[in-house]
Amino acid sequence: MPAQQQGPGPGTVSDVGEFGLIDRVTEAGGTSDRVLIGPGDDAAHVRTADGTFVVSTDLLVEGRHFRRDWSTALEIGRKAAAANLSDVNAMGGVATALTVGLGVPADTPSAWVVELAKGFEQEAAVVGAHVVGGDMTASDVVVVAVTVMGDAPRPVRRSGALPGDVVAVAGRLGWSAAGLATLGRGFRSPKAVVDAHRVPTPPYWAGRAAADAGATAMIDVSDGLLADLGHVARASGVVVDLRTSALTIDAPLLTVGEALGLDPLSLVLTGGEDYALAATFSAPTVLPDGWTVVGEVRDVPEGARPAVLVDGATWEGEPGWRHWR
Amino acid sequence: MPAQQQGPGPGTVSDVGEFGLIDRVTEAGGTSDRVLIGPGDDAAHVRTADGTFVVSTDLLVEGRHFRRDWSTALEIGRKAAAANLSDVNAMGGVATALTVGLGVPADTPSAWVVELAKGFEQEAAVVGAHVVGGDMTASDVVVVAVTVMGDAPRPVRRSGALPGDVVAVAGRLGWSAAGLATLGRGFRSPKAVVDAHRVPTPPYWAGRAAADAGATAMIDVSDGLLADLGHVARASGVVVDLRTSALTIDAPLLTVGEALGLDPLSLVLTGGEDYALAATFSAPTVLPDGWTVVGEVRDVPEGARPAVLVDGATWEGEPGWRHWR
Repeated sequence: MPAQQQGPGPGTVSDVGEFGLIDRVTEAGGTSDRVLIGPGDDAAHVRTADGTFVVSTDLLVEGRHFRRDWSTALEIGRKAAAANLSDVNAMGGVATALTVGLGVPADTPSAWVVELAKGFEQEAAVVGAHVVGGDMTASDVVVVAVTVMGDAPRPVRRSGALPGDVVAVAGRLGWSAAGLATLGRGFRSPKAVVDAHRVPTPPYWAGRAAADAGATAMIDVSDGLLADLGHVARASGVVVDLRTSALTIDAPLLTVGEALGLDPLSLVLTGGEDYALAATFSAPTVLPDGWTVVGEVRDVPEGARPAVLVDGATWEGEPGWRHWR
Repeated sequence: MPAQQQGPGPGTVSDVGEFGLIDRVTEAGGTSDRVLIGPGDDAAHVRTADGTFVVSTDLLVEGRHFRRDWSTALEIGRKAAAANLSDVNAMGGVATALTVGLGVPADTPSAWVVELAKGFEQEAAVVGAHVVGGDMTASDVVVVAVTVMGDAPRPVRRSGALPGDVVAVAGRLGWSAAGLATLGRGFRSPKAVVDAHRVPTPPYWAGRAAADAGATAMIDVSDGLLADLGHVARASGVVVDLRTSALTIDAPLLTVGEALGLDPLSLVLTGGEDYALAATFSAPTVLPDGWTVVGEVRDVPEGARPAVLVDGATWEGEPGWRHWR
């Protein structure tokens, strides 16, 4: 997670913010006869000479996305791979291949690099994918660039949610954030949440199943449930209303909440990096195993904007984590 | 190009070196039913549910691969894209899609980022490819991670060169190195080589044509002709012998050589980043337009190793540029 930075004034990336700038630099993108889904979703969908694939990329920087004193190289590799495999999961696809670009200081033990690579291979193996290429260079801090490719016969976008749909989630929420808070206070337990922060366990089984069940929109929860459903709400032009009574608050979150004085519900709503999936389905529908209904999709009231509500009201506080704030 | 670094001792990446470490971290890779060509070539070749694609990745770090005071954002974007599009070219393929991971300091003008993205789009457009995805994060120096994907119906590997083949090149050699030397001494001309260093013009027309003409091995010249043909020699288990009389030394290289006291032939043999192609073809063969025979492939003499020779002898000096030396 990021060191806090002061915004150095107008016209800088700090001023415009990550999402605003991504919008600006990708507006030239869009679709073409080769690009079926362009920038702006969990993954792009590209036509080849003989078929299609989906692709997504992430750039992780030491001190912002991981710390070498909090995680082993193996854990960092697994988590970086998981974050990307999750993007293909969120399109309703199955990942097949990863590439890894690695920048490391010249005094890095080569054993550290070998362990990192092992972490990538281990996590990729969970879904049957392989690391097929890489690049290495010297840099002052560790930088890990990951690109994942996969098959998605029926890619599920962020923009397909319709009023009347149900909202459902699969996978853990709030565990990684609880682990991060624990580490941040200098503790090493509860081990379950610390482990979850170090190596997430995305619900890889859930994405393709949701696509097959006709999910209308889907996203992975990398920045926080409210933040990521916000992307769905805006892309679909709808209001997403979550019912807190339907959200599961797992036992370790209650433990951490009590020990550290944190609101467990807030961890569930705003914690990122567990790589759960959130999707919308036409109602009534039979959801695939492991999916839980947690809310509904509604029309945007006249004069209002697409938004995510919690029990019908605006959530007070940050919806999720941002770069450069 | 890199700042010189002192190697900080045994067991570090500096000690093992880039290529040795890439070999170690990718040895677990290899091929599978999904991975037709794994790590170690210009690009990997991956099977999808319904076809195949090739993919390659690069990680570029400010101060090592580019300087913001020597190149505009547009130029850096074009060059980063070109280096990757060239990898698909070197497989005999045609690039279709790029992803870009970008790390920038928070005080970077957003206009700089927008120009960089424009550079990517411009270079991609030369071959009809598109930027389909990206990621942005804060980092202390600018980091650019590029992944390129494309179609290659008949990928040409590094390992197929056979004794008796001819060696041929397409595209410029030595121009970028001459431009770098010029900038390094504080000059801004000859403009032709400075421009070539800032924005290379890879022979995108040459890769697919060579594959169609039955090239037995191919590589792009990113690190220097001797260094890159060294990869072909080792992967194929052959000796490559270049004839200097067959190599073209373009006029601007003579100018720079004289002005800066550099050997123009050395620029041609060891200069990288023009992204020319070098390939081997069964002899006798009619080469595609724009390809020039510059040497031949021979058996490795008993007790000797695969190598690249110049007029039958070992080249004195560095074959190309290395990280961490």
